[in-house]
Amino acid sequence: MIQPGTLVMLVNKKGKTYFRTVQETGDIHTNEGVISFEQILEKDFGQTISTHLGKTFYLLRPTLYDLIKSVKRKTQIIYPKDIGYILLKLNLGPGQTIIEAGTGSGALTTALAFVVGQEGKVFSYEQREEFSLLAKENLKRISLDTRVEFIHQDIKEGFQQQGVDAIFLDVRTPWEYLQQAYVALKPGAPIGFLLPTTNQVSTLLAHLEQNSFFGPQVTEILIRHYKPVPERLRPTDQMVAHTGFLIFARKIETQ
Amino acid sequence: MIQPGTLVMLVNKKGKTYFRTVQETGDIHTNEGVISFEQILEKDFGQTISTHLGKTFYLLRPTLYDLIKSVKRKTQIIYPKDIGYILLKLNLGPGQTIIEAGTGSGALTTALAFVVGQEGKVFSYEQREEFSLLAKENLKRISLDTRVEFIHQDIKEGFQQQGVDAIFLDVRTPWEYLQQAYVALKPGAPIGFLLPTTNQVSTLLAHLEQNSFFGPQVTEILIRHYKPVPERLRPTDQMVAHTGFLIFARKIETQ
Amino acid sequence: MIQPGTLVMLVNKKGKTYFRTVQETGDIHTNEGVISFEQILEKDFGQTISTHLGKTFYLLRPTLYDLIKSVKRKTQIIYPKDIGYILLKLNLGPGQTIIEAGTGSGALTTALAFVVGQEGKVFSYEQREEFSLLAKENLKRISLDTRVEFIHQDIKEGFQQQGVDAIFLDVRTPWEYLQQAYVALKPGAPIGFLLPTTNQVSTLLAHLEQNSFFGPQVTEILIRHYKPVPERLRPTDQMVAHTGFLIFARKIETQ
Amino acid sequence: MIQPGTLVMLVNKKGKTYFRTVQETGDIHTNEGVISFEQILEKDFGQTISTHLGKTFYLLRPTLYDLIKSVKRKTQIIYPKDIGYILLKLNLGPGQTIIEAGTGSGALTTALAFVVGQEGKVFSYEQREEFSLLAKENLKRISLDTRVEFIHQDIKEGFQQQGVDAIFLDVRTPWEYLQQAYVALKPGAPIGFLLPTTNQVSTLLAHLEQNSFFGPQVTEILIRHYKPVPERLRPTDQMVAHTGFLIFARKIETQ
Repeated sequence: MIQPGTLVMLVNKKGKTYFRTVQETGDIHTNEGVISFEQILEKDFGQTISTHLGKTFYLLRPTLYDLIKSVKRKTQIIYPKDIGYILLKLNLGPGQTIIEAGTGSGALTTALAFVVGQEGKVFSYEQREEFSLLAKENLKRISLDTRVEFIHQDIKEGFQQQGVDAIFLDVRTPWEYLQQAYVALKPGAPIGFLLPTTNQVSTLLAHLEQNSFFGPQVTEILIRHYKPVPERLRPTDQMVAHTGFLIFARKIETQ
Repeated sequence: MIQPGTLVMLVNKKGKTYFRTVQETGDIHTNEGVISFEQILEKDFGQTISTHLGKTFYLLRPTLYDLIKSVKRKTQIIYPKDIGYILLKLNLGPGQTIIEAGTGSGALTTALAFVVGQEGKVFSYEQREEFSLLAKENLKRISLDTRVEFIHQDIKEGFQQQGVDAIFLDVRTPWEYLQQAYVALKPGAPIGFLLPTTNQVSTLLAHLEQNSFFGPQVTEILIRHYKPVPERLRPTDQMVAHTGFLIFARKIETQ
Repeated sequence: MIQPGTLVMLVNKKGKTYFRTVQETGDIHTNEGVISFEQILEKDFGQTISTHLGKTFYLLRPTLYDLIKSVKRKTQIIYPKDIGYILLKLNLGPGQTIIEAGTGSGALTTALAFVVGQEGKVFSYEQREEFSLLAKENLKRISLDTRVEFIHQDIKEGFQQQGVDAIFLDVRTPWEYLQQAYVALKPGAPIGFLLPTTNQVSTLLAHLEQNSFFGPQVTEILIRHYKPVPERLRPTDQMVAHTGFLIFARKIETQ
Repeated sequence: MIQPGTLVMLVNKKGKTYFRTVQETGDIHTNEGVISFEQILEKDFGQTISTHLGKTFYLLRPTLYDLIKSVKRKTQIIYPKDIGYILLKLNLGPGQTIIEAGTGSGALTTALAFVVGQEGKVFSYEQREEFSLLAKENLKRISLDTRVEFIHQDIKEGFQQQGVDAIFLDVRTPWEYLQQAYVALKPGAPIGFLLPTTNQVSTLLAHLEQNSFFGPQVTEILIRHYKPVPERLRPTDQMVAHTGFLIFARKIETQ
């Protein structure tokens, strides 16, 4: 049975989705009628719930994918298609430590906190306090905030950590912080970047080698969704054409 | 300092890569000369090593991305671009349990074992014993085999587990095993599939709803690599155009 | 100097575009003020014109690309990205004859009429009269209507022509008209199809060989636009993910 | 019946293709046996021919697509996917005049000569004489050489024509020739470019506006082929990821 404090997802057949932290009492107003928390507290995940209008919703536990999509945002967020790949390239799993900057709305932070587990740690830097607070709230809602240290500081001054397992920089001019990143990273460890323009990619590539980062890889990931109709299978009409270029490299010994 | 038994990666400037488990003694023959394990045992990750011909290699710790790429294979493997997305959609992180079938060469198994951590568990089904053995060897090499139970069984007979957090089926006719998957899955939990042809996708979609799996999503992920040359930035000439379609759904209560 | 009756294009710096057939007198109301036809009659292509609010528009001759984009439509039109490829695959140039069905709004008809020249001919079949009339109007506006014969007939009854150089079928169930197409086509000549779903493609492929059409090719064409800003070059955020699959084959001798 | 001097295409079921200009006598050696020209002279397009080993080939008239693909090349050629779009954007049809530089192996030249017809003209500039000669030979083989004037000259000295309907520059540093192109183009007329790197695109964009070229559009076109098997429809494994970026603009009045 669902417990109070649990984050749940209500989805109807058309895919309309509501995320709510379950309360002892109160109502959820959907586009197809009202569902009460009392109803939810009597259910398990995977079950159906009817609104007061008799419309059906499914009660589901959000996956990491859903959590990322549900982040309350004041900024552009990093997309799941990119996050999945970032996790593999940065070798993120249970027990790892990682620095990210900037925090933004906390979409990537959510994924990082999820995969590093209780033994891992995310150090998330952000200059604009309103974003730090928003991200903290987003992480708190899903009980992952204890795995994250939100740091409200200009990274030009350097990072407070040393020997971290990976760094991800989602900032406008990452080439200005390569020395700071170099100091904070464990030898041989991976670093990643997200940049929207080709000009930024060129500038970053030119700086990476000079700063003892090896083996740069530049990629972009495209995702195409299909309308899931068995007898009329076809891609959707529109797709996201660009989020950003992903760049990865490794810290190597200065020669 | 690198310890014997560690899996290391040697990479030169052109990207030529060698994976080796470090021994007390012996040689690694590269295309640019010989490196001895004794040399490696005196180094740390991120440092350079010279071959007997004076050529430089970097000594790196493989990331999850590298581990997947380095899997010894007798089958087509699932690509990192797809694996990253699968992890998010299946909500895989520390402590989760997952069933996969078939094991194949163990590329996805590697990623699953990596992210579920020591508290998690992967149940990997495979009918052809030679693949089970190959995958087990691949996982043993990176000390992740203890997190995996390799099961050599026809999944038509059903799965031995119940209440698992997720299932991934990479088999030719997954619609034949939906009831078995339904029984094994925790209510509300996600299931994923990889299928190469559109006909298979149509057939699967037609079966999913009948078997109480909700909210099917069909996607494909494309990755495009760029030549990382700052002053001549451009996509590579060729790319992988297709690995497979990814399909995801959720187990819901039978009504 | 621009003559009355000429189709012109007015474009401002933001890309806002107006197509008009030049009259002796009258006004064009743009989003940035009014331009009179008298002003246009004093200008040449490539020159600027000011609205009564002092805003600048460029006076341009529409290219084939612009003509296709400017078609007044009541249906989904075939996109330039697809049309360009269709022209090459169907070998369309001066003097060729082609059958198309259905006419739709006349976007492809426009391109066909343009490239076959005054010696060529387009036979355009359409069952719904309102579309035939709309397309005829679209072609008349650009003085290409004399190259097209609009035929308002069910193609199940067959085509009225024989020995045409190419056929293009943009209809829902093209496999029902393959025999009719076979009769109308010159031996060895190419035929093309546009189909939105994978199921339709499979059905068509199954029928092509049975009807003595050889060498089927299935493709899709994706176009990605970039924001043309030199110092911040990047793809646009969204793109068209799917218009349809293009299928091509050749009529061969029945054995 | 096929006449001597005709360019024909022989294709077998696997898609293996041979292009030959039909002679009075002689043999064609295929991978599945020999076909004589005498056999071909007794056939029509669309018919089958047997090799001396009893293997079947189809006798087909090459389409513009095939002609482009069959160009004998010493350079990278422009692909059909790009050429189709170029034709639309440059408004090329019967009677038009166009300048292209450089000629290269003549793939684009082939398409241009094809579509401008007997009343049109292609002025094709190339500095390296061996390419001019190769392209001329390629065009002669398909009897389109009379529509092309091959000019062996450095375009820095300017173009010999004025008032042409369009220009296409496939050269490394097109921004060095914008003034020359401006002089040669009809007012308002379109100009196109193909460039492989993002850096070149940025440089070109920065120069276009300064040289009174309006409305730059930057695109890239991707083509994805499918295995044409009805019951196992799927994209091919590999695809061309990049040929070049296409850039288009218009000559406008200098203010």
